[in-house]
Amino acid sequence: MDNKKIGQHISRQFNAEMEDIRHKVLTMGGIVEEQIEQASQAFMQCNLELAEKVIQKDDQIDSLEMEIDQECTEILARRQPAAFDLRMLIATIKIITDLERIGDEAARIAKMVIALEKTDYYHDKYHEIQHLLDMVKAMLHSSLDCLARLDASNVVDIKNQDVKVDREYGSIIRQLITRMMEDPRNITRALDVLWTSRSLERIGDHSCNICEHVTYMVKGKDVRHISQEELEKVISK
Amino acid sequence: MDNKKIGQHISRQFNAEMEDIRHKVLTMGGIVEEQIEQASQAFMQCNLELAEKVIQKDDQIDSLEMEIDQECTEILARRQPAAFDLRMLIATIKIITDLERIGDEAARIAKMVIALEKTDYYHDKYHEIQHLLDMVKAMLHSSLDCLARLDASNVVDIKNQDVKVDREYGSIIRQLITRMMEDPRNITRALDVLWTSRSLERIGDHSCNICEHVTYMVKGKDVRHISQEELEKVISK
Repeated sequence: MDNKKIGQHISRQFNAEMEDIRHKVLTMGGIVEEQIEQASQAFMQCNLELAEKVIQKDDQIDSLEMEIDQECTEILARRQPAAFDLRMLIATIKIITDLERIGDEAARIAKMVIALEKTDYYHDKYHEIQHLLDMVKAMLHSSLDCLARLDASNVVDIKNQDVKVDREYGSIIRQLITRMMEDPRNITRALDVLWTSRSLERIGDHSCNICEHVTYMVKGKDVRHISQEELEKVISK
Repeated sequence: MDNKKIGQHISRQFNAEMEDIRHKVLTMGGIVEEQIEQASQAFMQCNLELAEKVIQKDDQIDSLEMEIDQECTEILARRQPAAFDLRMLIATIKIITDLERIGDEAARIAKMVIALEKTDYYHDKYHEIQHLLDMVKAMLHSSLDCLARLDASNVVDIKNQDVKVDREYGSIIRQLITRMMEDPRNITRALDVLWTSRSLERIGDHSCNICEHVTYMVKGKDVRHISQEELEKVISK
């Protein structure tokens, strides 16, 4: 092969490696989304089988995280990528950490379902977190959508959704405290709702992080810890 | 300059850049450790001034995170590091995320102190979390020590400490639930302790992550999600 052909060959291989990583991250995102769906269903319907499924699948998420991490590091070592490719690898390393932690929160909810099944307190449909759950699922979905389309235009929206999630979370906590004070028999049940709400609120934070990392990838600018005004400026560029 | 001299010059500069990053990460670790110390003191003694100090300093942690992150990425782009240097940069990018989250937990505790000051409930010394607090502070200190000495030999110990932290946390939660059930007037106070305990337990997790990243840096092996036996094998090599 002449030099030009070798060059094309290497660049084709490099593209294939980057594409492979992208594909795996999106797969990981899909699994994590399903985990949240199933963990929350398990919680709302006291479905033990579903809870077990979520816990079992957590290992697969952990393995994917380690696998993607290693592939990114290998490409950094062998290919010395620059510009967008370098940012994509760095952002990916961070995104998979957030995805893994979302998976952890799903597993945490599932483990609680199994612990609760052994007590007498599991008798309710926990309807008060339905709205928070819907909001957080939508946020995660939008973040993964940003990632799939490599499009940062929704990041301001997603960050605004997070403010609403925090507000809804705060309102649930206040309701729960009132109900606990009214009747101590409500305490155990209220704490179950409290832990699950807390997990959901954290998932909202991680979803925000993911779209911040996508913004860094696409726009080349670190947008963590900046004001909404500055963020809008970065996005509009 | 001849080629050899240029080579030495570049390598000296490179070493200086790596040293600068190391220095900044250790500074960030020191600040975070102080934040935990001050936030918990503020909580135990209802010290508003100290709580305000913790909240103000959170910005400095965020800035350091962004600064170190950018320096790591620039070195990756310009120097194409390999082997230990590459691992150090990748691990650093992850370590500062954990440090920043520890800082967030400290700020969370401090914000609660300020919110509590406005209520009637703040009247107690919250002595029941003292032991958990001491354990977590020791864990964080050991982790930062691993990082400063680039020594992974304590990682098994630190992970064992985390198991004890989780156990202590579980026992505090059970005590709190009992006390809430005995007398609903205890609920608000119990929830303050519950949130702070939760933050401390999370700081334990982040400390564990930090020494796992140090192990990857020093031993070249990803030790997340592996058994204690496998971990011991990696460390003894």
